[in-house]
Amino acid sequence: MLNTERETTETLDIKFNDQGLVPAIVQDIDTGQILMMGWQNAEALKISLETRKATFFARSRKRLWTKGESTGHFQQIVDIRVDCDQDTVLMRCKSLGPCCHAGYQTCFYRQLTPTGQLSFIEDRAFDPDEKY
Amino acid sequence: MLNTERETTETLDIKFNDQGLVPAIVQDIDTGQILMMGWQNAEALKISLETRKATFFARSRKRLWTKGESTGHFQQIVDIRVDCDQDTVLMRCKSLGPCCHAGYQTCFYRQLTPTGQLSFIEDRAFDPDEKY
Repeated sequence: MLNTERETTETLDIKFNDQGLVPAIVQDIDTGQILMMGWQNAEALKISLETRKATFFARSRKRLWTKGESTGHFQQIVDIRVDCDQDTVLMRCKSLGPCCHAGYQTCFYRQLTPTGQLSFIEDRAFDPDEKY
Repeated sequence: MLNTERETTETLDIKFNDQGLVPAIVQDIDTGQILMMGWQNAEALKISLETRKATFFARSRKRLWTKGESTGHFQQIVDIRVDCDQDTVLMRCKSLGPCCHAGYQTCFYRQLTPTGQLSFIEDRAFDPDEKY
């Protein structure tokens, strides 16, 4: 399908990459904060739509995983959106706990300074070394 | 560098993919809305940091492009963040005009319905067929 068709259609026709994956952003629907970005294959997107729990394809472990399956910190989907050329997914979620395995509410806990260094700007919700 | 080192360091060490690119999300700092996702190479990220205008690498045209260079609808960067394993960039921006070339404020103008169809949920700021 042409990009222009993808932009104007009501038919879902995700443009998966050559590994069959599409980037999927998670946004906290209450705070507006971007919590994480993962990758979905067609099945992960289908399961997310059906279960309303944000589900991804873990590229390193090569398996489906539902965010929160081991911690209970699920991301409950309120709505799913796709972008113009259907190569990015956005899931707006009710966050049931800190999203990042490093112990922060969001994975984006560092800011790039003008000199090109990273500055930690978020408070940690838990210490992963103590928790696991 | 190990992922765990990437998570705890103050050194910028982006994990680019095998094409030398990293996904870069643009968020409207005033509304919290996700406006678009593009791809950056090292140079696009450097230019974004220096000029404070969101700049990407266009994969189809294989060149750098600054969002708004042809329309004046720049995305003025307020802050740049990186995620835990440094494989995603988030730019929070002051949006100087509709971000999506299809005429909407955001590229995410369609919602995925429970039956798997797409529903248009955003108002159009302009008609691209008339504008260009």
